[in-house]
Amino acid sequence: MRLDATASGVFVICPTPFAENGALDAASTERMIEAYLAAGASGLTVLGVMGEAPKLDQEESLRFVRHVLRRVAGRVPVVVGVSAPGFASMRALARGSAEAGAAGVMIAPPAGLKGDDAVVSYIAQAADACGDLPVVLQDFPLPTGVVMTAAMIRRMVEADPRLVMLKAEDWPGLDKITALRRLSDQGNMRRISIVCGNGGLFLPFELERGCDGVMTGYAFPEMLVRVRALLLEDKREAAHDLFDAHLPLVRYETQPGLGLAVRKWVLQRRGIIGSAALRAPGPKLTPETIAEIEWLLARVEKAAAAAAA
Amino acid sequence: MRLDATASGVFVICPTPFAENGALDAASTERMIEAYLAAGASGLTVLGVMGEAPKLDQEESLRFVRHVLRRVAGRVPVVVGVSAPGFASMRALARGSAEAGAAGVMIAPPAGLKGDDAVVSYIAQAADACGDLPVVLQDFPLPTGVVMTAAMIRRMVEADPRLVMLKAEDWPGLDKITALRRLSDQGNMRRISIVCGNGGLFLPFELERGCDGVMTGYAFPEMLVRVRALLLEDKREAAHDLFDAHLPLVRYETQPGLGLAVRKWVLQRRGIIGSAALRAPGPKLTPETIAEIEWLLARVEKAAAAAAA
Amino acid sequence: MRLDATASGVFVICPTPFAENGALDAASTERMIEAYLAAGASGLTVLGVMGEAPKLDQEESLRFVRHVLRRVAGRVPVVVGVSAPGFASMRALARGSAEAGAAGVMIAPPAGLKGDDAVVSYIAQAADACGDLPVVLQDFPLPTGVVMTAAMIRRMVEADPRLVMLKAEDWPGLDKITALRRLSDQGNMRRISIVCGNGGLFLPFELERGCDGVMTGYAFPEMLVRVRALLLEDKREAAHDLFDAHLPLVRYETQPGLGLAVRKWVLQRRGIIGSAALRAPGPKLTPETIAEIEWLLARVEKAAAAAAA
Amino acid sequence: MRLDATASGVFVICPTPFAENGALDAASTERMIEAYLAAGASGLTVLGVMGEAPKLDQEESLRFVRHVLRRVAGRVPVVVGVSAPGFASMRALARGSAEAGAAGVMIAPPAGLKGDDAVVSYIAQAADACGDLPVVLQDFPLPTGVVMTAAMIRRMVEADPRLVMLKAEDWPGLDKITALRRLSDQGNMRRISIVCGNGGLFLPFELERGCDGVMTGYAFPEMLVRVRALLLEDKREAAHDLFDAHLPLVRYETQPGLGLAVRKWVLQRRGIIGSAALRAPGPKLTPETIAEIEWLLARVEKAAAAAAA
Repeated sequence: MRLDATASGVFVICPTPFAENGALDAASTERMIEAYLAAGASGLTVLGVMGEAPKLDQEESLRFVRHVLRRVAGRVPVVVGVSAPGFASMRALARGSAEAGAAGVMIAPPAGLKGDDAVVSYIAQAADACGDLPVVLQDFPLPTGVVMTAAMIRRMVEADPRLVMLKAEDWPGLDKITALRRLSDQGNMRRISIVCGNGGLFLPFELERGCDGVMTGYAFPEMLVRVRALLLEDKREAAHDLFDAHLPLVRYETQPGLGLAVRKWVLQRRGIIGSAALRAPGPKLTPETIAEIEWLLARVEKAAAAAAA
Repeated sequence: MRLDATASGVFVICPTPFAENGALDAASTERMIEAYLAAGASGLTVLGVMGEAPKLDQEESLRFVRHVLRRVAGRVPVVVGVSAPGFASMRALARGSAEAGAAGVMIAPPAGLKGDDAVVSYIAQAADACGDLPVVLQDFPLPTGVVMTAAMIRRMVEADPRLVMLKAEDWPGLDKITALRRLSDQGNMRRISIVCGNGGLFLPFELERGCDGVMTGYAFPEMLVRVRALLLEDKREAAHDLFDAHLPLVRYETQPGLGLAVRKWVLQRRGIIGSAALRAPGPKLTPETIAEIEWLLARVEKAAAAAAA
Repeated sequence: MRLDATASGVFVICPTPFAENGALDAASTERMIEAYLAAGASGLTVLGVMGEAPKLDQEESLRFVRHVLRRVAGRVPVVVGVSAPGFASMRALARGSAEAGAAGVMIAPPAGLKGDDAVVSYIAQAADACGDLPVVLQDFPLPTGVVMTAAMIRRMVEADPRLVMLKAEDWPGLDKITALRRLSDQGNMRRISIVCGNGGLFLPFELERGCDGVMTGYAFPEMLVRVRALLLEDKREAAHDLFDAHLPLVRYETQPGLGLAVRKWVLQRRGIIGSAALRAPGPKLTPETIAEIEWLLARVEKAAAAAAA
Repeated sequence: MRLDATASGVFVICPTPFAENGALDAASTERMIEAYLAAGASGLTVLGVMGEAPKLDQEESLRFVRHVLRRVAGRVPVVVGVSAPGFASMRALARGSAEAGAAGVMIAPPAGLKGDDAVVSYIAQAADACGDLPVVLQDFPLPTGVVMTAAMIRRMVEADPRLVMLKAEDWPGLDKITALRRLSDQGNMRRISIVCGNGGLFLPFELERGCDGVMTGYAFPEMLVRVRALLLEDKREAAHDLFDAHLPLVRYETQPGLGLAVRKWVLQRRGIIGSAALRAPGPKLTPETIAEIEWLLARVEKAAAAAAA
């Protein structure tokens, strides 16, 4: 099952579950996959920024990818983040993922690229390194400092049919989504799938601006699924009510660096993964932070129930 | 009236009101001051990052500061942001502000400083350039890339009695507030005033972690005042309810670059300033963005009313 | 006397002479001007990166510019660096410089600009802020992180007739000079003047690649003048011999941050300025560094004499 | 043979030789090793910044390291650069290198680390990931933006006995070498080996400031060896004469990004490696650049002969 430009729905960004000693936790991986599929995921993404990808060595990365694909067994498409410091590593991971049945790869331009042409050229070379796999272009300037305008994205889309999806997580980014949609609506750019990220912080607006789906890993993916469904049913107030009920926790989970530890803690508390452990370097949650998460969970539960009522 | 380490309450970050043609808008400045004081501000801060300070030339900056101070007329302390590319400009603005009656100056380390010692040394030199004025240290790494740990802040506080307030807007930053409070609670650091910024995005938690106040410019400062009052009255649920009612707009207003345009638009719509104009370079709000702000305003109004009930 | 696209020769980047107490040193300024003109300067540039421009306040900047222009009295064109954190300050300095008789302004895109379009748009707005003054575009990515490709420079040149000169100091930058020359030679870009900077580190090659001149402040500007003359006379070996005799000191003077202190020290030792003082923040030369400069000066003198023989 | 704090001499930074098709070139690797040992190398360093390390995948890196160590066969110590985006990859490469007989590992703090404590903590964790191997700390802020003061280096040296060598390539960096030497001379820091890098651009001064050796990959390592020998024999003028004869080419080879292509081209022309090919992404030498290298080679040869006479 290969990704194409018609993809839509919620692609859940998967953390990489570790045991307390840092080893890959296979049982948690399987439980997590089942939980995400049960929550309504249309796809899964592994080894993204929030998947601690750089903390795995090459052999572990491939082992994890193969395990996920074997467990998913074709029920939904699986995208593999292959960003790496060089094309040789990227090629090795992409080839292994393709053999294991990945639906596509996700690539972000690396920090330090300067000038539009350097970015465009990098993405072209990276896509070549990934062979014929469909490509998700990740537009996430906050950690990388690399800005891609709508015009640049258009250049890349027009140049390479493998580029079938954009993960839009510029900040601010709403007007860029509108600009990209306008380009394809007016026939000035091949239409690709656009999914929003950013931890979901601007979710309902991003969908209303024209995103086909969501690709993020908020610890309650069923909320993402439901908000999208409500918008598709034209229930705008209900969609926003539900989202706003979760926003205090969404906001808490989007703290750079700390956010993944928060997310894993919630997933552990929900029984989805066995340990909230991160590999080093990574933050430790303080008692104060844990108390705030508990406070937020209690309030979100109440508010979400009220919103549903 | 000089700022000291016991300062608390809501210090509203003032935008600089411009007419449509870009000139300083004196009438709006006065209306804004009155609105902020009426909302319960304990202090005002002008020429901060959100005050478009670098877009004023030296003469305009001084003219604006003098005007504000004349109008406030000692009712609350006024802090002046003096961050400048060099100490000569900083000195000129600080001296003029002191003569006009400023309560203190706010200084942030400039982008590009590398290494803890360089930061500590810069702040010492900058404070000297500001003469004997009390200093607010702004800890805002997102735009500057300069990180200040609790240990570094301690070094600066211990070295310079002029440093009386910290504007804490690291992200994530909650544990740093706790660490700083612990340092002074345990007698390992002189106690200074800590106010939180970050557009208010983490407001109730920051106050609960030990902030003495808030220094931000959210377009409804009365909410900031009320949330703080509720927490002081130990009404935690009510405080969070009110804050969460505003969070969708708070989140929308914290978009880097775009946020100030959103804020000015709301202030104009509320009749507080005459024009939402920004000086170049600055973003223009699209019709889609304006529609989203309108949507958020309507919902915030309803939710805040519900929270108050 | 206004700068135009036919400008050539050596434009000496002037440091701003300070007395030991940090005040502007008028006598040294006049002596320096005469020394540079006597050395064969075709023009002068003030308030550049190496002119400590950000360390002057607005009034001082204008006073210094007026003084220089009065003293030069039309003998050569004078370019004024107007890079500033905002357009209002830039406008004030450009207007004052125009009134005093400046030949043009020099503008660099500020650190932090992301994406080609943002750079192009910034330069257009900055040129507008400078009125009708001819513009020197400074391409100096090392301190700013802003990369401008030949294609971007072409866009800006084609869009704005005020842009008459490029200060080319990308690193590496030789092939960009060739690319730009090819563009105008083949009729694909209006021909502008290109002068090289980078402290002169790649000087003979830059002239051979097609630069019309040099804009840097090496403490022996007569060497720059002579190397250019030798190349124009087709004496390539002699030009390189003379340059290579100076290269050990050129290299020592191009150390970021420290280099200006080295340059001022040599200028003071040559009797051109009265004090090597820099305004804070700035480095202090250690005894070891001074001994190395002395060693280099003695060797350069000997080697230059040998090269001339 | 393990590295220790008494190490000295010239450690040649080895490029990774590729065939035209990008494959590892085993024959060139062996020829290069023999050439470097014949030139007087006291040690070799592989997989550094100039070894295109990030362009190899994990399996290739280990294969290359094993090949080099087998060929060197204990004649000199071999240091392996293990900088990697995560500790798992670093651990895998370090373990494999240790098994193959590496003398130590070289680690640089990654771009993006903010604050002294984060750097110190990173290096401690990285050293742990490398097991008990001796560590060379690389201080190279130009590409990483991470500054390490003498005080920070002292902290790391005092904390970890595995840290036995510093590769000093800050820029400017001469006074830091003096400061570090003073610290150990005065008994305030354990004495470690300091080798200079920076392409050799400040070579004789760095040795005179107290460096025990050189770790760089200039295409004529015999010059580095000879300059050091002359200084040890107290022939200062002769040492500088020889170095200055090479300086025009040294300067040309230190152009960021382009420099490695220049170096490989010279090594190919000298018959040391079979192909100047770089893996993508990497620059291509233009005909103009090649002509300049040829010009420089001819002049260096003549000048070096004159210096030797």
